[in-house]
Amino acid sequence: MGREAVIELLEQRREQHLAELVEWTSIPSISAQSQHVPDIQRACDWAADYCRAMGMKTKVHPTAGHPAIIARHDAGSDAPTVLLYGHYDVQPPEPLELWDSPPFIDNWGSGEAVGGNAEPVRDGMLFGRGASDNKGQIFAHLAALRAWFEVGGGPPVNLRLLIEGEEEIGSPNLGEFVEAHADELRAKWAVVSDGPMLSPEVPAISYGLRGLAYFQLDVSAASVDLHSGTHGGAVPNPATALAEFIATLHNPDGSVNLPEFYDAVVPLEATEREALAGLNFSDDKYLNNLGTPGLIGEEGYTTLERRWARPTLEVNGIWGGYTGEGAKTVLPSRASAKLSCRLVPRQEPNAIEAALRQACSERLPDSVRWELQVFAGAPAVLTPTESLGVQAAMRALKAGFGADPAFTREGGTIPVVADFQTVLGADPLLIGFGLAEDMPHSPNERFRLECLFGGIRTSGVLWDELSQLS
Amino acid sequence: MGREAVIELLEQRREQHLAELVEWTSIPSISAQSQHVPDIQRACDWAADYCRAMGMKTKVHPTAGHPAIIARHDAGSDAPTVLLYGHYDVQPPEPLELWDSPPFIDNWGSGEAVGGNAEPVRDGMLFGRGASDNKGQIFAHLAALRAWFEVGGGPPVNLRLLIEGEEEIGSPNLGEFVEAHADELRAKWAVVSDGPMLSPEVPAISYGLRGLAYFQLDVSAASVDLHSGTHGGAVPNPATALAEFIATLHNPDGSVNLPEFYDAVVPLEATEREALAGLNFSDDKYLNNLGTPGLIGEEGYTTLERRWARPTLEVNGIWGGYTGEGAKTVLPSRASAKLSCRLVPRQEPNAIEAALRQACSERLPDSVRWELQVFAGAPAVLTPTESLGVQAAMRALKAGFGADPAFTREGGTIPVVADFQTVLGADPLLIGFGLAEDMPHSPNERFRLECLFGGIRTSGVLWDELSQLS
Repeated sequence: MGREAVIELLEQRREQHLAELVEWTSIPSISAQSQHVPDIQRACDWAADYCRAMGMKTKVHPTAGHPAIIARHDAGSDAPTVLLYGHYDVQPPEPLELWDSPPFIDNWGSGEAVGGNAEPVRDGMLFGRGASDNKGQIFAHLAALRAWFEVGGGPPVNLRLLIEGEEEIGSPNLGEFVEAHADELRAKWAVVSDGPMLSPEVPAISYGLRGLAYFQLDVSAASVDLHSGTHGGAVPNPATALAEFIATLHNPDGSVNLPEFYDAVVPLEATEREALAGLNFSDDKYLNNLGTPGLIGEEGYTTLERRWARPTLEVNGIWGGYTGEGAKTVLPSRASAKLSCRLVPRQEPNAIEAALRQACSERLPDSVRWELQVFAGAPAVLTPTESLGVQAAMRALKAGFGADPAFTREGGTIPVVADFQTVLGADPLLIGFGLAEDMPHSPNERFRLECLFGGIRTSGVLWDELSQLS
Repeated sequence: MGREAVIELLEQRREQHLAELVEWTSIPSISAQSQHVPDIQRACDWAADYCRAMGMKTKVHPTAGHPAIIARHDAGSDAPTVLLYGHYDVQPPEPLELWDSPPFIDNWGSGEAVGGNAEPVRDGMLFGRGASDNKGQIFAHLAALRAWFEVGGGPPVNLRLLIEGEEEIGSPNLGEFVEAHADELRAKWAVVSDGPMLSPEVPAISYGLRGLAYFQLDVSAASVDLHSGTHGGAVPNPATALAEFIATLHNPDGSVNLPEFYDAVVPLEATEREALAGLNFSDDKYLNNLGTPGLIGEEGYTTLERRWARPTLEVNGIWGGYTGEGAKTVLPSRASAKLSCRLVPRQEPNAIEAALRQACSERLPDSVRWELQVFAGAPAVLTPTESLGVQAAMRALKAGFGADPAFTREGGTIPVVADFQTVLGADPLLIGFGLAEDMPHSPNERFRLECLFGGIRTSGVLWDELSQLS
């Protein structure tokens, strides 16, 4: 049977797979920073070449932003069609000085050495930006699919592989792209591996993703920075105005203070709260792992509920005035903040933008100017947990990791998953191979090699399991 | 008579004086940034060499920070002793992209071209960091003194010239230095030219300076930046906590909300308020010049009172999390702000520090860590307006600029002036040659050439006027 031969081949190739992933991860395909456009192209070509080499019909499509890859394999009209989604772009690696090994090994492109001197592969993990999110996880599928081509001429399903390059900036062009290519991409299931397992021993299927609405707010007053002695006390200070505005965005009970913010929120059901409470999550262990002096959040909810199932508003960045060494007595002419909301089902990104805009208009003083830019918007996703596809994915995860998977939700966002449901009619199968402690988006991002190899085994089994549902 | 010969010589030397000032201003002697220590030394040596060349007994003294120059000239035991103070250090030039010409001409030291391509001398002004604050203003005295040496063997007063290199970082070592050299520096008057005239046509004597207390507040929570989806809503956000803290620092009426902040403040007297109201200051013109949509401040006070005679709290800088291009969904591990208060008579910098520390302790949540650094502290200064020294300085200003000087106060701080009063017993004579629109501390700092030459003429007359008071 094909499955066993595939697994055997995959087990023989561990070193080769790691070497290939190291190569891909070394490319600084940072979608947010325009100077990395050539790296984006290289990382895209790397994946497209990999797909072509194994025998998939592969095309790189330009978009209004970074290119997207569609690769396809047809197993026959009686086989089910499955969409597999991932992304080749990564988050910016800053702050660089906190990396113990280079975020992009020796391929940073600037000629400068950045990051520490530690070995990128150490302690059973590969360290690098994108190692887990998402190159490592999507590569697990690519490796397994190649084995299927070698052993049996391809996996026993009709496969539509979509790898994009703008996930980390909110996939601004992918919704339109999916609509334009809906006929080609239409599938029964959408497999997405871009999230964490419950623990290194326990794999997970996620049935919920939070949505995202991401903004930049710029506040300005005088046309240039001024002497804070000569003008302080009389000229508006945009940094103060911005701080005072941000301070209005949460209520004393930790809830978000934007107009009608909770109106569309679907309340958590008692059965789900019980299930989440049963996941053996420890606040103390979590707090200690992160090194924070305390936890916070919306009153009346547990930490997992706050992270996975309740909407939030966070300051992702703030800057203005003099931020260098020592004292500079300047009255800033402008100050800015990156603000984002994580959304739960029924909250609409457009409505959140309108609410934030209304709050800016009502709460910022007339003595300053303000401008709100929208960087990303995606609704939340909830998927059915009882389907045959989910059962098949559970069997594959058990085969890959040797343990029954848990049902979880995810606090993060994969913007396009909502489109897979609504545009393509595909039920998401969210089977992440990462871990919460992989530090995605943080310095020293890593991917545990056991997760890589377990993910590869899972993918080796998954296509066979799904093919039996047709 | 010496005075006329001096003035004649000075008028012949306009081009030479400008060339010399350009040379000094081109040295990036930025006291706040440690990479500019060699430039600090060069700018110090430049001034010391100038003093030595004219015939003053000159010594460069090391301090715990940047060196200070003492140069002296003795006219005889029946001549009065005058201290002349200035500083050779400058503020950081950032943001560089807003300069129309280079902040340090071609002497930035990094090999990189920074600033725009405009000519540094244009529209009757010299543009550069330090052109007005303080190299241009102290140079006016150096140029006049050299002429006195050439014409008459030196000015007719015993002169103690003190030029320091840490004014822009709050003169942290100068108080101790003045105490250690009190015997050498003791003087009847302390001449300081480090502030603005009332307008290009109207010179001014300032009888008040605000003090300064400058801090950096660092707030932190998790040990590294985290994914804002995975952890947002549960892990404390230091940027939010910092913004919420900053929002507590002002009351709705614009006053500063720190414990006992106003307890020591000496109220403005009705006569002084009348005098300030008589200065023909226009809010509309001021607002339009600065390009700000509005003015703000403490209720019940005019703009000039807010800028010159009332204490303030300003955010000089704020930063944390992702501040680059585009969207990065990060939950910051730390956020920081530079905060400073301008102080008025009887407010003590140490008391302000204690008040801010108490506010941090009481108002920041237990879920974050915080640290407060103190960068600078100096009390405010008020000087008598009726003394013979002030009358002499007024005559010199009238001779230099052709108009009667106004009495003003200053919103800025010259930390050491309080020490001149208390340690040396010297009455300050604050005769600035700059203009509010010189943009000190801002991009495109400039010094009007008419102010330079008027200042040189004023200094040429001043020593003669003061010598007649002995």
